[in-house]
Amino acid sequence: MSELVSDVLAGKHSALARVITNIENRAPGYREQVSALHRHAGDADVIGVTGSPGAGKSTLVDKVAAAYREQGLTVGVIAIDPSSPFTGGAVLGDRIRMASNAGDMDVFFRSMSARGSLGGLSTATTDAVTALDAFGKDKIVVETVGAGQNEVDIVRTADTVAVLVPPGSGDDVQMLKAGILEIGDVFVVNKADLDGADRTVQQLKEMLQGRSGRPDTGHHGTISGTPGDGETRSADRTGETGDWDPPIVETVANRGDGVEAFLDALASHADYLDRSGRHEHQARERYAAEIRTLLREDANGLLSAELDRRGGLDGFVDDVVDRETDPYSVVDELLAPLRDCLAEDRESHHG
Amino acid sequence: MSELVSDVLAGKHSALARVITNIENRAPGYREQVSALHRHAGDADVIGVTGSPGAGKSTLVDKVAAAYREQGLTVGVIAIDPSSPFTGGAVLGDRIRMASNAGDMDVFFRSMSARGSLGGLSTATTDAVTALDAFGKDKIVVETVGAGQNEVDIVRTADTVAVLVPPGSGDDVQMLKAGILEIGDVFVVNKADLDGADRTVQQLKEMLQGRSGRPDTGHHGTISGTPGDGETRSADRTGETGDWDPPIVETVANRGDGVEAFLDALASHADYLDRSGRHEHQARERYAAEIRTLLREDANGLLSAELDRRGGLDGFVDDVVDRETDPYSVVDELLAPLRDCLAEDRESHHG
Repeated sequence: MSELVSDVLAGKHSALARVITNIENRAPGYREQVSALHRHAGDADVIGVTGSPGAGKSTLVDKVAAAYREQGLTVGVIAIDPSSPFTGGAVLGDRIRMASNAGDMDVFFRSMSARGSLGGLSTATTDAVTALDAFGKDKIVVETVGAGQNEVDIVRTADTVAVLVPPGSGDDVQMLKAGILEIGDVFVVNKADLDGADRTVQQLKEMLQGRSGRPDTGHHGTISGTPGDGETRSADRTGETGDWDPPIVETVANRGDGVEAFLDALASHADYLDRSGRHEHQARERYAAEIRTLLREDANGLLSAELDRRGGLDGFVDDVVDRETDPYSVVDELLAPLRDCLAEDRESHHG
Repeated sequence: MSELVSDVLAGKHSALARVITNIENRAPGYREQVSALHRHAGDADVIGVTGSPGAGKSTLVDKVAAAYREQGLTVGVIAIDPSSPFTGGAVLGDRIRMASNAGDMDVFFRSMSARGSLGGLSTATTDAVTALDAFGKDKIVVETVGAGQNEVDIVRTADTVAVLVPPGSGDDVQMLKAGILEIGDVFVVNKADLDGADRTVQQLKEMLQGRSGRPDTGHHGTISGTPGDGETRSADRTGETGDWDPPIVETVANRGDGVEAFLDALASHADYLDRSGRHEHQARERYAAEIRTLLREDANGLLSAELDRRGGLDGFVDDVVDRETDPYSVVDELLAPLRDCLAEDRESHHG
């Protein structure tokens, strides 16, 4: 085991930061580091938080991190900004939020941006979560902007996904399209003191009814953080069917309103995952998906290197342009060695 | 050569329709059919038309097809609907538009939907264009809804890309995000008689200035289809620099206003592609991209089959969950035969 990995396992934050930088940059040795760390991971709760820009994710995540700290839990936050690889946006956000957690290194905050492909960022997020998990963080929050397919992939690294919706944004329709509705385990209407919050809650309820594909049984109750509000809590709402009905939580994060209710909803979902066996099922699905992704990426890397060795595509493209061959025939030719090799491998195992 | 391919080359529309169905369904033999057809393709102008739902794409495309027919040219239209694989939307649109071209089989209209993956739909579109091209259609229009990455990929099969923007939609910002602005060769503000059209044209001009990365030289003139309007035409605006400044055309497609100006803009761009050598350059880039995509898809198919043969991922996932191994190590193990095989292949070529 490398010294860097030992240092991470020994709880050194500087080593953790360096490993995540290696992961982000695909620096030499990062695979072996993640491999070694994986053997020590698996105990953290991973919470994904997504929503459009301006929904108040950062503020809510900061409050959640502070609340967990008060419970004596350790927290890691990874903020992903897929849209702006080179702008200072992520860095600026970083500074502001580091200040709000100043002096409290048990909230380890780290932003990651899209240096490589977005697909790669999804893998990098998974690896960073593994590092935080092996380090020993109790709660890991993965925060990402937006509602596109890439964000959906990123946030899927989480056990529990919270989707933030600002009131009156009309974003619900956008989210529905992008499939965010399907992956939300908990919905948060933040800035619930603004005009239009009630309408947004109502729209969300209707959309979630559509999602469950069954008549409204009144299960989509709102959990309000306002004291004295007597609405049904999410924990009570899942016992009968074994299904999870995503609760809608109203918060005003900058005042701290509704944060406890949000934590309760997260805890209920974690409890549901354990009781129902969904937790292990999700983990298995994630690992299978991760292996498939890595398999694709690595195989493509090998093929690209092979193609380069054979002088690249230019000669083939010449022949395609001249109509002497065509893309399908070119690919058949290029993959012939791989086909032969797999066939030989099969035969040698049979013989 | 198969009888079906011979029939396509002989100009039988029923054979063309069957080949495209084979392409859409990845039916056995479709690769060989496309391979054979590719040798006879390469003469058509391919025009991509995209824009958000309600922008008036269908109406404009119908008018364009009719105008080409009046010039004695043959036309094929492929309408792609990536968003609704199973709804009747595409089919309904089909019928309405078939009626408007009734009895005129030289406008061959065909809709394709996302049966497989969207990546696959992009390949299928390319293949369908090859079929129409080999058939002998002079003009091929690829029409697709929306502004996501998949639509961008689909519309890239075209030589010239037209982007439709409805007035006052606020869609410009969405498009900018999705990269549609970068791929538009001609912009069309359709429904130019509606309120907000001037503002949309102005916004587009500003965004296109940002795109070119140089100060406004007043080159982004508006081409209006209104008779008597004396604005600069796009054809005059490209001669000096050799660059292409995307013109903005205003149309009212359902009245036919601006359709001639749109055709002029398309012709100017086709002319620019030829004069500048961009046409061949684009074709080469497209073929290279297509080969890479097919290479990836086929290699992944081979690896999936190999994985199935080895009993699938379940055993590996068990070990990953039990922390006895990790995804990176699993992938290294699975790809070892391929690595060995490529190394052997290299050695045998050296020896």
